[in-house]
Amino acid sequence: MTEKKFLQVLGGARAETPPIWMMRQAGRYLPEYRELRRRAESFLEFCYTPAMAVEAALQPLRRYDFDAAILFSDILVVPDALGQRVWFEAGAGPKLEPVEKSDPLAGLGMDNFHDHLAGVYETVSQLDAKLPSDVALIGFAGAPWTVATYMAEGGSSRDYADVRGWAYHDPEKFRALIDLLVEATAAYLVRQVDAGAEALQLFDSWAGVLSEAQIRRWSVDPAKRIVAAVKAAHPHVPVIGFPRGAGALYADYVRETGIDAVSLDVAVPLGWAAAHLQSQTVIQGNLDNLLLAAGGAALDEEVGRIVEAFAGGPHIFNLGHGIIPATPPEHVGRVVDLVKNAG
Amino acid sequence: MTEKKFLQVLGGARAETPPIWMMRQAGRYLPEYRELRRRAESFLEFCYTPAMAVEAALQPLRRYDFDAAILFSDILVVPDALGQRVWFEAGAGPKLEPVEKSDPLAGLGMDNFHDHLAGVYETVSQLDAKLPSDVALIGFAGAPWTVATYMAEGGSSRDYADVRGWAYHDPEKFRALIDLLVEATAAYLVRQVDAGAEALQLFDSWAGVLSEAQIRRWSVDPAKRIVAAVKAAHPHVPVIGFPRGAGALYADYVRETGIDAVSLDVAVPLGWAAAHLQSQTVIQGNLDNLLLAAGGAALDEEVGRIVEAFAGGPHIFNLGHGIIPATPPEHVGRVVDLVKNAG
Repeated sequence: MTEKKFLQVLGGARAETPPIWMMRQAGRYLPEYRELRRRAESFLEFCYTPAMAVEAALQPLRRYDFDAAILFSDILVVPDALGQRVWFEAGAGPKLEPVEKSDPLAGLGMDNFHDHLAGVYETVSQLDAKLPSDVALIGFAGAPWTVATYMAEGGSSRDYADVRGWAYHDPEKFRALIDLLVEATAAYLVRQVDAGAEALQLFDSWAGVLSEAQIRRWSVDPAKRIVAAVKAAHPHVPVIGFPRGAGALYADYVRETGIDAVSLDVAVPLGWAAAHLQSQTVIQGNLDNLLLAAGGAALDEEVGRIVEAFAGGPHIFNLGHGIIPATPPEHVGRVVDLVKNAG
Repeated sequence: MTEKKFLQVLGGARAETPPIWMMRQAGRYLPEYRELRRRAESFLEFCYTPAMAVEAALQPLRRYDFDAAILFSDILVVPDALGQRVWFEAGAGPKLEPVEKSDPLAGLGMDNFHDHLAGVYETVSQLDAKLPSDVALIGFAGAPWTVATYMAEGGSSRDYADVRGWAYHDPEKFRALIDLLVEATAAYLVRQVDAGAEALQLFDSWAGVLSEAQIRRWSVDPAKRIVAAVKAAHPHVPVIGFPRGAGALYADYVRETGIDAVSLDVAVPLGWAAAHLQSQTVIQGNLDNLLLAAGGAALDEEVGRIVEAFAGGPHIFNLGHGIIPATPPEHVGRVVDLVKNAG
């Protein structure tokens, strides 16, 4: 039996107080991260260099009593390793040479995939060796739909009309891209577990722009196949799914994908999730990252409300979306203290 | 008893086949609209000139057998009439001189509000006179939260971090803006009914970015107050609410606002809405606007699936979001034919 509270709760156990970690707990809101980041020419170089990525993941643990660390990386290393050109422009977010919609797999493939990602696997391995014994290590990947939006549109999208239109106009070609991403993502996650990851999170950040029929096809089904492939290699590794914005379809996602836990975005009502999701899975979430940045009495109250709402079953405290750069670090410490002393 | 099928169903009656209209049924996907639009210097001038706005609203009715027409206008006429500077740049969307967060009501007020909107009321009045006798006339406004996002951020937002952060940092000042918008929006909608609107729709297009607690405060509560104020003046006018992206919170919105019908975005599962919402309200929706643009057999199938899912109660056929400019007009005609001949 693991000593790590995060893994115990992820396995379905109850705890006196919920374990806690936060999406983007390593990152730009920390001055020591901004200092570290300056040492790399590019963001991808930063992600692929274990000395930097390991340090980034460890930084928040020196400040806060988190129960888990997460690999420091980016979801777009997968298209990068598949052969797509990916780069990051300061202030403008990620940029990609968009795939050719008539031939989306042109130039992409798995031939050099794991070699390209060797630095990520090495980062996981070093983190596994360096983490305190009570802190769990989470690996992660972007879900195929979310990664495909960047690959098709060449970067962040405002309305996803381009990629959603493509998926309707030519579902067979779009499916070829999704299928490649299912294969690559599963292989990537398996290697992370090989290297020492103890749990995995699959981020489908843009699931919420899909219709009911499309979310089943492009979010639920790929997640199900990835979970099955990962569990075929590592039957006991827990997988957390995050179909952000899925609304009432969170229930279908939980029921059909085979995930062990579900991460809730801020719009998911606590009472509904406790009644309809927590009986079937472990809940992770869902403090508003903007409230974390704002702080004050409203933050304290909301932390208490979330802890109380999910006290009846397994619950991992987290945000509904990642920490934003403007967040005062002391607000993060405040929430950790509140959660550790809850109840 | 009205002869208009749209109003009968909005009143709770069942119909052999659902009445149909589409959000943005007047607009840029129609060549005759693009031709008409060229006659005005600015988009706001277009909205305020009855000769143009009336013609825009009538154009789709010459092509399609819609059961309702909607006022041609924009949700940002309200901040414009309150005194904020609003303009539209081609290709860049709406722009506003953002409100001062320390003093959000500076320069804003109701003094000139109805005079400024006289052209809109005249448009409603002329449409009321010109519509075929079996076509209902819908008035509309943006909901306070959605309008406030533009007023605070100075235009469209990518992540709404600025306005959401403000609402957390200084809820009293933000509430002052919301309260002004509740008052103005209710007054605006009452005048539309005075001028001939037979039903109203309240568009809360960005409700989905709010947390559960915030959506209750900034979307549900303002909608409830607007519905109450409108019904105080016009007890029988039906109001359709559209809390886009509200997910499982659609149920709370329906239960608490006093709306007569709810417009569903594409992510709302049909079965869930039929089971949990349709027993309490009239359903409007929710074909994917991107599927409408794509067309083909998948479009035909989805139309059938939606009609069937909501056949057990009152249902108005519509999209989950507005028609996009790239939509072939014949796809709209195809859907109208399918719905009129359903069952």
